[in-house]
Amino acid sequence: MQNFIFENPTRILFGQGTIARIGQETKRFGEKVLLVYGKGSIKRNGIYEQVLASLKEAGMDILELGGVKSNPVLSLALKGIEIAKKQNVELVLAVGGGSVIDTAKTIAAGVKADHDVWDFFTREKSIQDALPVLTVLTISASASEMNAAAVITREEEAKKYSSRSPFLQPKTSVLDPTVLYSLTPAYTAYSAVDAITHALEGYFNNAEFEDSTLQDRIVEGLIKTIMENTEIVLKNPKDYNGRANIMWAVTLAFNGLTTAGMGAVSFPAHMISHALSALCDTPHGAALSIVLPGWMTHTLAHDPRKYARLAREVFSVRENDDGKAAAEGVRMLKSWFASIGAPTSFRQGGIPETDIDRLAGNAFGLAQTWGLKDYTKDVISSILNLCK
Amino acid sequence: MQNFIFENPTRILFGQGTIARIGQETKRFGEKVLLVYGKGSIKRNGIYEQVLASLKEAGMDILELGGVKSNPVLSLALKGIEIAKKQNVELVLAVGGGSVIDTAKTIAAGVKADHDVWDFFTREKSIQDALPVLTVLTISASASEMNAAAVITREEEAKKYSSRSPFLQPKTSVLDPTVLYSLTPAYTAYSAVDAITHALEGYFNNAEFEDSTLQDRIVEGLIKTIMENTEIVLKNPKDYNGRANIMWAVTLAFNGLTTAGMGAVSFPAHMISHALSALCDTPHGAALSIVLPGWMTHTLAHDPRKYARLAREVFSVRENDDGKAAAEGVRMLKSWFASIGAPTSFRQGGIPETDIDRLAGNAFGLAQTWGLKDYTKDVISSILNLCK
Repeated sequence: MQNFIFENPTRILFGQGTIARIGQETKRFGEKVLLVYGKGSIKRNGIYEQVLASLKEAGMDILELGGVKSNPVLSLALKGIEIAKKQNVELVLAVGGGSVIDTAKTIAAGVKADHDVWDFFTREKSIQDALPVLTVLTISASASEMNAAAVITREEEAKKYSSRSPFLQPKTSVLDPTVLYSLTPAYTAYSAVDAITHALEGYFNNAEFEDSTLQDRIVEGLIKTIMENTEIVLKNPKDYNGRANIMWAVTLAFNGLTTAGMGAVSFPAHMISHALSALCDTPHGAALSIVLPGWMTHTLAHDPRKYARLAREVFSVRENDDGKAAAEGVRMLKSWFASIGAPTSFRQGGIPETDIDRLAGNAFGLAQTWGLKDYTKDVISSILNLCK
Repeated sequence: MQNFIFENPTRILFGQGTIARIGQETKRFGEKVLLVYGKGSIKRNGIYEQVLASLKEAGMDILELGGVKSNPVLSLALKGIEIAKKQNVELVLAVGGGSVIDTAKTIAAGVKADHDVWDFFTREKSIQDALPVLTVLTISASASEMNAAAVITREEEAKKYSSRSPFLQPKTSVLDPTVLYSLTPAYTAYSAVDAITHALEGYFNNAEFEDSTLQDRIVEGLIKTIMENTEIVLKNPKDYNGRANIMWAVTLAFNGLTTAGMGAVSFPAHMISHALSALCDTPHGAALSIVLPGWMTHTLAHDPRKYARLAREVFSVRENDDGKAAAEGVRMLKSWFASIGAPTSFRQGGIPETDIDRLAGNAFGLAQTWGLKDYTKDVISSILNLCK
């Protein structure tokens, strides 16, 4: 076990009917709220009305910023910062998935900064303050509802970069599993892929460190739960317990619990997948299902033991040789991704193989920002070649 | 999954060398600190000096209250409240295990109350404010370092009662696994028993509710980790990873994680064991290792399915019949308790069988306070008869 600091003060209101309580939660932090949301699906499925009713009942003064798209862009966040500054907004409420929450976090930090908010993402500056952020989660995947991270894309440079600060940690997040009933099969699959990748990047980060059975067991339990329940809700989208198990497991997969004690965790598969999203606008989960198996194949060659453990514990592989078991585990994970309809190749993701050089260059830029020195452009190219 | 609120803002500083940071942590909450500790073991193993050095370096003004014993008593907490009020103490620092932390919490709440602090334990009043509590953990067992509960005994009535409030949640807890090196084999065993019981009372609370595989897997992972590592440290008390795995697993076993989504969890085995502690001064962990197997035998008769799951997942029982598997699981748990030196009968705990009626009466008083209507004095007597 490595030394660690664990601190996660987000209050989670979980369950059917909890959206009605968001007004009272926001009221603790002020009266003027900026409501951030996406392309309008919340207006079609009734969530927008539920949120608005609760905010109004609590006497909140509401401003709105809609239009957040997946792979959220800096330009919209800048618009939000302008509105919030001009109108003296006191808190930001994200109603959406990771893209909406990360836009809200970027706005919250930007309002308190006297410089370009992008400086927080290039890591030139660190966040010193932010408006309170609250969330009503509508897509489970990023765990942004219970962590201190935000990811945003600067379109003109096609850079999808991340920032992290305790000030970005949501104060309250409302998780009502029934909002996931209307999630498409594709996004249900992408959510599972994203959460599994979060859990696995921590798990494999420690591939050479053998004493993390506590964290390993939690990760294995989360992955099994996500897999079982994704299969259930793909058959029956309104299975409450299926959606609830996924929703809570996905949050726990990236709220600091699984990585506490695992050392400095890096996220190379996420890093490479960000290039696919930045350059080809591949949805985040789809980019991950293409990249993760290739990245695993590349890294297990160095030391297959942890990969063999995954194969045995999660996929019930009964092979004694670690190398063979590890490879079989990757094959089974990839085949499970395919079974839930997530793309597992460039071809399936509609990405031309000729893009590999450009993608590697983009990911290499991020590797430098994140300080992942092992990830040269050549290494990234090799990995991408395993993802074709 | 049942609806739930999860909120656990305690900051955990975990690992070797972290005690040196307690001074800076306390400083965030004031300058005048009441340092609460036990019978002086911290003076023998050097922890007291480390804490004092860090507090002094941070410029803290230090008052002391030592002498907390296991099954901590109200009278000492009242003394602490008096000192803290008179001296305008701004925060309370517990350096010890659950007994010391719970005394510190009682003092912290009592300072802000204009009535008898015991009213919080009889549930006549609810806590509305408290001084900030911080902890340096020296015995892993109660998880009080990361939860909102406190248990205290009013000696003259022999009542061991509990209270719970977000105001009691520690602000920061320092968990340095090396402090456990000097823990005796008996207390190492009691710690394991206490944590396993915490995890299992939540697990069995939901015996009829089949959709808690996420929480069940976490509990099973924690228990396996605690068992494996207890065996390791009983052989080699200075095994760092063994102590570290136990320390973090024990905290996670009762910080709200395993019970989130499990409904209103009650703690009947704890309740009955409190009577043994209150009347016979049995150490908490020893009382639990006597009571838990008997309580399980009593309750599994109603529905053995969850008990059978435990037997199969944790004890690798390969029996298809749920009733038989469940009974075998209890037998194996009891035998594991015995193997680590924890008492598993009245005789081993030095409690006369003739005390059963008196013990049942005491536990029944607590059952009424806690609202556990199924636990009549007769039911409790039957359970105690299974623990002889």
